[in-house]
Amino acid sequence: MDATRSRRINPGAAIGAVALLLLTGCSGGGGGTSHVGGEANLQLPDLGSVTFLGMPGDVLLGLGLIVCALGLGFGMMTYTQLRRMPAHAAMREISELIYTTCKAYLKQQGRFLLVLWGFIAAIIVLYYLSLGFGVGKTAVVIGFSLIGMAGSYAVAWYGIRVNTLANSRTAHAAIGGKPYPLHDIPLRSGMSIGMVLISVELAMMLIIMVFLPGEIAGACFIGFAIGESLGASALRIAGGIFTKIADIGADLMKIVFHIKEDDARNPGVIADCTGDNAGDSVGPSADGFETYGVTGVALITFILLGVPEQTMQIQLLVWLFVIRAVMVIASGISYFVNSAITRSRFSSADDMDFEKPLTSLVWITSVVCIASTFLTSALLISDMPDGMWWKLSLIVSCGTLAGALIPELVKVFTSVKSRHTREVVVSSNKGGPSLDILSGLVAGNFSAYWLGMAITALMAVAYWMSTRGLGEFMLAPAVFAFGLVAFGFLGMGPVTIAVDSYGPVTDNAQSVFELSTIEEAGAEDELEQEFGHKPDFEKAKYLLEANDGAGNTFKATAKPVLIGTAVVGATTMIFSIMMGLTGGLQHDVENLSLLHAPFLLGLLVGGAVIYWFTGASIQAVTTGAYRAVEFIGENIDLNSDAKRASDADSSKVVEICTRYAQKGMFNIFLGVFFATLAFAFVEPFFFIGYLIAMALFGLYQAIFMANAGGAWDNAKKLVEVDLAAKSTPLHEATIVGDTVGDPYKDTSSVALNPVIKFTTLFGLLAVELAVLLQSEVGGWLTGSLAAVFLIASMVFVYRSFYSMRIDEKLEDITIEVVKAS
Amino acid sequence: MDATRSRRINPGAAIGAVALLLLTGCSGGGGGTSHVGGEANLQLPDLGSVTFLGMPGDVLLGLGLIVCALGLGFGMMTYTQLRRMPAHAAMREISELIYTTCKAYLKQQGRFLLVLWGFIAAIIVLYYLSLGFGVGKTAVVIGFSLIGMAGSYAVAWYGIRVNTLANSRTAHAAIGGKPYPLHDIPLRSGMSIGMVLISVELAMMLIIMVFLPGEIAGACFIGFAIGESLGASALRIAGGIFTKIADIGADLMKIVFHIKEDDARNPGVIADCTGDNAGDSVGPSADGFETYGVTGVALITFILLGVPEQTMQIQLLVWLFVIRAVMVIASGISYFVNSAITRSRFSSADDMDFEKPLTSLVWITSVVCIASTFLTSALLISDMPDGMWWKLSLIVSCGTLAGALIPELVKVFTSVKSRHTREVVVSSNKGGPSLDILSGLVAGNFSAYWLGMAITALMAVAYWMSTRGLGEFMLAPAVFAFGLVAFGFLGMGPVTIAVDSYGPVTDNAQSVFELSTIEEAGAEDELEQEFGHKPDFEKAKYLLEANDGAGNTFKATAKPVLIGTAVVGATTMIFSIMMGLTGGLQHDVENLSLLHAPFLLGLLVGGAVIYWFTGASIQAVTTGAYRAVEFIGENIDLNSDAKRASDADSSKVVEICTRYAQKGMFNIFLGVFFATLAFAFVEPFFFIGYLIAMALFGLYQAIFMANAGGAWDNAKKLVEVDLAAKSTPLHEATIVGDTVGDPYKDTSSVALNPVIKFTTLFGLLAVELAVLLQSEVGGWLTGSLAAVFLIASMVFVYRSFYSMRIDEKLEDITIEVVKAS
Repeated sequence: MDATRSRRINPGAAIGAVALLLLTGCSGGGGGTSHVGGEANLQLPDLGSVTFLGMPGDVLLGLGLIVCALGLGFGMMTYTQLRRMPAHAAMREISELIYTTCKAYLKQQGRFLLVLWGFIAAIIVLYYLSLGFGVGKTAVVIGFSLIGMAGSYAVAWYGIRVNTLANSRTAHAAIGGKPYPLHDIPLRSGMSIGMVLISVELAMMLIIMVFLPGEIAGACFIGFAIGESLGASALRIAGGIFTKIADIGADLMKIVFHIKEDDARNPGVIADCTGDNAGDSVGPSADGFETYGVTGVALITFILLGVPEQTMQIQLLVWLFVIRAVMVIASGISYFVNSAITRSRFSSADDMDFEKPLTSLVWITSVVCIASTFLTSALLISDMPDGMWWKLSLIVSCGTLAGALIPELVKVFTSVKSRHTREVVVSSNKGGPSLDILSGLVAGNFSAYWLGMAITALMAVAYWMSTRGLGEFMLAPAVFAFGLVAFGFLGMGPVTIAVDSYGPVTDNAQSVFELSTIEEAGAEDELEQEFGHKPDFEKAKYLLEANDGAGNTFKATAKPVLIGTAVVGATTMIFSIMMGLTGGLQHDVENLSLLHAPFLLGLLVGGAVIYWFTGASIQAVTTGAYRAVEFIGENIDLNSDAKRASDADSSKVVEICTRYAQKGMFNIFLGVFFATLAFAFVEPFFFIGYLIAMALFGLYQAIFMANAGGAWDNAKKLVEVDLAAKSTPLHEATIVGDTVGDPYKDTSSVALNPVIKFTTLFGLLAVELAVLLQSEVGGWLTGSLAAVFLIASMVFVYRSFYSMRIDEKLEDITIEVVKAS
Repeated sequence: MDATRSRRINPGAAIGAVALLLLTGCSGGGGGTSHVGGEANLQLPDLGSVTFLGMPGDVLLGLGLIVCALGLGFGMMTYTQLRRMPAHAAMREISELIYTTCKAYLKQQGRFLLVLWGFIAAIIVLYYLSLGFGVGKTAVVIGFSLIGMAGSYAVAWYGIRVNTLANSRTAHAAIGGKPYPLHDIPLRSGMSIGMVLISVELAMMLIIMVFLPGEIAGACFIGFAIGESLGASALRIAGGIFTKIADIGADLMKIVFHIKEDDARNPGVIADCTGDNAGDSVGPSADGFETYGVTGVALITFILLGVPEQTMQIQLLVWLFVIRAVMVIASGISYFVNSAITRSRFSSADDMDFEKPLTSLVWITSVVCIASTFLTSALLISDMPDGMWWKLSLIVSCGTLAGALIPELVKVFTSVKSRHTREVVVSSNKGGPSLDILSGLVAGNFSAYWLGMAITALMAVAYWMSTRGLGEFMLAPAVFAFGLVAFGFLGMGPVTIAVDSYGPVTDNAQSVFELSTIEEAGAEDELEQEFGHKPDFEKAKYLLEANDGAGNTFKATAKPVLIGTAVVGATTMIFSIMMGLTGGLQHDVENLSLLHAPFLLGLLVGGAVIYWFTGASIQAVTTGAYRAVEFIGENIDLNSDAKRASDADSSKVVEICTRYAQKGMFNIFLGVFFATLAFAFVEPFFFIGYLIAMALFGLYQAIFMANAGGAWDNAKKLVEVDLAAKSTPLHEATIVGDTVGDPYKDTSSVALNPVIKFTTLFGLLAVELAVLLQSEVGGWLTGSLAAVFLIASMVFVYRSFYSMRIDEKLEDITIEVVKAS
């Protein structure tokens, strides 16, 4: 590529100059010799050609569908049970109102998703047609991308439906004065979501593997995975923005008007409840669905590319998916065992530590899953050479163990007992919001160190195991080991999702209780009849609050688990791209090295994109929160007799949240989309560097933000519950910390996982398309396209701040003046 | 290395387990085949064997010493001038008090530095003795490390001496009512520091090159560079902690007691003024000194390792250092030209934009330096083949241009005119400290994106130029190009340092003015006699405030320049290590690739250390600030007639600052030190990954923090100056942002540059020592040592939070309760 040509592309714009520089700088390198490896067009071998326990592989996998059916049945059963549970009419009304608002939001999101899907679909079609797929086959792939996206969307919807049943049932049960039902209902709804989600995902994958022709299955997996990660990314970003606008809006009213959190007169409360679902329920559901799927696809791709011998390919593929099915059963069994223990201990207790049964559930599941992994492996692949069965089991178990260990580590930095959280409170007491913020940042930073070291140690163990003989059977055994760790991370998926989904239910339950104004509804007689004693509203509120604390903690611990899978899983996926670009590590391998300058430059831009993403998502929340605060401040009516905000005002706040969530998400998503295309078209190894850096920077940034947010949140809880110091300057200082942590932990941090995986998966197609175009048409085309895409991406980056500003002139603002004391 | 052995090392401790995992995981890899390249023992060729302009190379370089002498002379001259300038006795007294306090602080730091140097020296001795250096030669190397450290220390001291003369002269000049002297004095003192610093540094390097025997010069350079970067790191960390404890302590009093910034009754003000010097003056001086030196050493090392042909080696070495000398002259000339222009325009003006002459100085210098680069290259190396002279000049000019462009880019996010800064103010007005913090974070994040992209683009251009024929004469021409960019970045060093040193003087001048209580001193007649008119104190304060704004801006813009050099310069240095490990890229090159798992794991731990470093440095500030706030709050006396805080109380605050600065720095520095050793001993290519990741993560984290801090700072200024809204809730919200930004921008961010370079330089020795020990003694030794070092490092990481806590029990704190309004 020469300077003359690139000068032709865009002689004017300053932004173009940067594009050109990048372009001219990097394309000159070494990518020219790469050829399309076609790893997005992998062929599955005939799984039936190898038998396991006397059964052909495909038949055995087909049996896995029975497990999925059982899982779905479990989900449906709990759903029906929840529906039948009693809830006071006033509470049911509120939860139906929340559900209706959520539905409206989800419908809008659905339309939006289809628009975004259009962008992706265009590239998929272009790629597969260029690759020589016929129209029919391409249509099947496209169809699967739509199915993937619909899957993410559907489980999100299901989650909201279940949660908005469970919230009023939990609130109602609190009036009974016993803690046990308050634990039982949210966990049951969580397990319902977890089981349905994992079963649907697993069923989809098994169907592709068992029933689709081998020559199209690989492409369908890719299409499916891109679709689901598109869905998860968009829903995570928009939901994260929505929920935190509402949350900050409601929180700041506590400082301004000194009203309590769920005061029914605050028109922001319905939006806040909707947000709890749109963000904290939709997010993990879609994210979990996607993560479970993408990790699977990454491993399938690795096995097909990295394991030369076909019998072993089949053995590993069947082994993997049987393990998955077995782990679903193991999760179910663990849940029932833990339930029985909890019931026997707490069913008639007057108080309980709500965190305990959740912790024991995670640990029991972890142990049962590890045992099942070894058992299944012994049964299925003990005939593999060199004790592969136990080595592989050990590697998977590293991940499964991590799924239980990482939450414990997170608690060191964020739980109410953590010395970091306590430091936040102590420093705020003399230093106000300033030191509150600083101490929370410290907690986040230290957690990034310790969690980063723990994840590294874990991967080091997996790597070490992989050097013990795996190299004879596959290329890059370390990468396979990393992939298996990610796989193990999510092995106990139903339980991980269940404890994560616990939080939004308990959070909503508190709100439903307040919004129902049940205390003033004159329902005491009715309730006394039902429960057999006078309702104790104070006890009910105490239990709901304590339960919410447990919900918060487990919401916090689930985040690093999901982000952890992103980085280890992405490594495996990136390896597949590398395999494609180097023809199975046959040529151009030196371009994966630091000595290849474009690779190093790629590492550099990855960081830029992660920092931008953080800023852009926070900006959307900031502007939205400003507008919400402005509207609520002007419209809240504390003086009249009205007990509740009007429906019109409540809808208006929901509308503000939706508007900024949409707008923010649109800019951010297209910024990411075009950046992926641009960097893939600059140079393939530049792109590899970019992907690696995204995973690395994303990991730390996400852990840091999630745990800083968790520490601030629980510092506030400490002040409210343990110190009983509401409405003091200390409380206000901790509210400031909490509101800063809101977008940190629930918007930016959690969206990074799906965004990293979307970029990696979609990038797989993009970079292959670029290499194809370069060799078929010429570097001038890919170079020009890279410049165009980079400019497009920068336009959205620019817009993600400048078109998202509050946009009030400094000269026009009215400054409130209070006299200096 | 096998599992049995590593199990022996430390069977117990949990922390040891992590160490072992890392160790067993990574040492199994591929480093075993490496041999010592001895790049820390490079031989300089005979520079006299090639002639330039009819002169042998060494003679020409010797002439460079004359330039250094001129530079020193310039510095001394300005120092004498400053001393002779008039300042009212009350003001002189204050500035001498500040200087005395600074001296006490520096003396304590000096003792501390010697302790830290002991750690480093042990490793240096061990390494060079193992390498077969005799005791005598080793002593010379050790001596140079001491000289390097002393150099950093001495320029820091010189900077403080000059600044504490200039501050009272500036404060005094303000009474004259004309702005020009307020610009002239701080810039003159800044140029004095810049010139002395660069001249000393350049002279040291020239002396090593010209007068030391070739076979020891390389080792002396390494020792010298390690010493100066040790000095710079420690002074940056401790100074950064000190200054921000005092600053936050003073700032928070504004909220608590509604007193103004430099109220003399506040016992924290003297500490604040000392901190401005200990942090903002010592820091850039030591940092600039180190950066200038290390970049030079990195390039020398590259040339000796990467350029095979000796004549060309000499040509490049001489060319580099002549360019440096010429740029010193160019900077001086530019200063005089700019001075003349400024004087003619503003010498009798009644008001001026203080930023303008600083901006024009930077741009004039940049243009003059670029022109001199081309001219010098044409004269010296036009006989090199293929138009090398203009290609190399162009690459250097990329860096020089960046030194002027990056500051402009920084202003987009932090200046008072920036839309980001304005967004901070607007959002705070309705959202209080919460949205203030969030908007500032957004500014930092977006700046990381745009600056990161700009730096990438710049490196891409350099890379692109390097592919135009340089490859015929050297290995890895891209790396040489990156090094030259870093070199160019600091080409106009004296000016970069001068505009950076402008800030602490203007900041102090304001404080000196207030502390002198000149308005109440009854000195009006005396002053009227001197200036020929009645002193206008209000005008004086207005001018001092406006000048301080300009100081702030240029302090902010210099930061990304210094950190930018760290990452590009470190790349070159890391390459030298790579050359050593691969025997000049002859073997083990595949270990520099993503396919080598330890390299990937190394990339992962780099991020962990950067996040920890950020947290640990903030923690030291938080605890110190808490103690300072506590002390000041209990001891400030606003009711009596005393106009000033007692000296005892002022000293007590200084003591608090010093204690936490020392303690914080000790933990942090030893954490970094042992981490470097540990990772170097784990596996060499793991270590390379670690170094690269430190540079990458450090770059973005530093830019993010510096600019978020800048935006918060100027948002506060906007509220104080443009909106004249002091003591409003808006003002208080922006103070919160500013205090959060304080350790962000002036502690953590600025310390990353020297820490990255210290790790890289010291790591060069450490990794070679490890490889040497592994091949001579065996992997069991390096493995065990890695575990021991890792545990040591983790102990300091642990201590950097747990021994630095405020350490008050939650149950014991007294919560202030105000009634809800």
